[in-house]
Amino acid sequence: MTMAVVREDLDPAEVEAERALFEPLTTAVRELVDATIRTLVPRDEILSVTEQLNGLAQRLRARELPGGFGVRFTGAGAIRNHGNAVVGLRNAFAPPLQVETSREERSAWSEFVLGAPYEGPPGLVHGGVVSLLFDQVLGEAAIAAGVPGMTANLAVAYLRGTPLGALRIEARVDRVEGRKVTVTGELSDGDGVTATAEGLFILPRTAAAWKT
Amino acid sequence: MTMAVVREDLDPAEVEAERALFEPLTTAVRELVDATIRTLVPRDEILSVTEQLNGLAQRLRARELPGGFGVRFTGAGAIRNHGNAVVGLRNAFAPPLQVETSREERSAWSEFVLGAPYEGPPGLVHGGVVSLLFDQVLGEAAIAAGVPGMTANLAVAYLRGTPLGALRIEARVDRVEGRKVTVTGELSDGDGVTATAEGLFILPRTAAAWKT
Repeated sequence: MTMAVVREDLDPAEVEAERALFEPLTTAVRELVDATIRTLVPRDEILSVTEQLNGLAQRLRARELPGGFGVRFTGAGAIRNHGNAVVGLRNAFAPPLQVETSREERSAWSEFVLGAPYEGPPGLVHGGVVSLLFDQVLGEAAIAAGVPGMTANLAVAYLRGTPLGALRIEARVDRVEGRKVTVTGELSDGDGVTATAEGLFILPRTAAAWKT
Repeated sequence: MTMAVVREDLDPAEVEAERALFEPLTTAVRELVDATIRTLVPRDEILSVTEQLNGLAQRLRARELPGGFGVRFTGAGAIRNHGNAVVGLRNAFAPPLQVETSREERSAWSEFVLGAPYEGPPGLVHGGVVSLLFDQVLGEAAIAAGVPGMTANLAVAYLRGTPLGALRIEARVDRVEGRKVTVTGELSDGDGVTATAEGLFILPRTAAAWKT
């Protein structure tokens, strides 16, 4: 199991080169995730595409990390969590959310679009995906406020079904007590709030490295 | 927006033929999701693979559903939620969980393995992924008990980090009050429980069709 919190000396140009290389790869795989759910092409075409995809996966696996990507820091302190299922540059399930933050407002927010891979009830976002997004964005608000932590509790209230499509999520730090941070948030569509969340995040004593 | 709850007359042989066709496709894309996070092959190889993946995605998109897969029922009442992010046959992010259920015990459980695409903190499952899994499996326990519903509230307590690797999740209906169903559950690794959950599920008045 790779448990690395890795510091790498990457300058901004190297970080950008990595993005320019992996963003198109991940976008291509993301298209495939969506297309696999929605395709109506004939059986023979599915079989042919499947065979070729297997060959391409083998090419990518010719040399690979032994486990997950982990969380890496550049020399400049920027976080590279590229495997992350919500925001990861190299995670094809991640929409990915582009999360904006304000240290002053102790907040984080994102506007994004969800399609077929995120569906639960017909036409609606999977309730668990709503929780997944909240966990990430509430956590990012805590990081933005300078009080990062791991999720200790997350409670989500679903006011109504969240339609697939254009959505907005936001979160803000409500209060800080020592290493404990309470963050609240809302998910909205064009008609208003669909779900709310409250999370308690606690900084592990061993995780001083997170304080970037 | 496709909002279809579709009933289709598929006999078991047709359902099996669909599985035999789409499971290998989805597995291939799932391998690509993982490999995209972990690959260390040279830049030129990434560029070449990306170009070919784009071509294959276009082939799958030659004919496709206008939106998500939705939830479909066979004539026999079996649910086909193939786009589902936790259990969907055609969702490459879904591990997928093979959820077993007991109507008598009003419970659902699954044993499964999580790798790189589900990582949050280094070597640990993303807290939001833990919530995602709970939402699905708690919901399936409610379905197994004959009291299905949409998630109204979900509260997850994270006792410690959940390592990537082999895990077990289980859930059971705790109580039923009219259309309201309370379900509890636990996620465990080989050393015991890592997280617990309580969910409130409510059957929408309009969703009689869910009672299969």
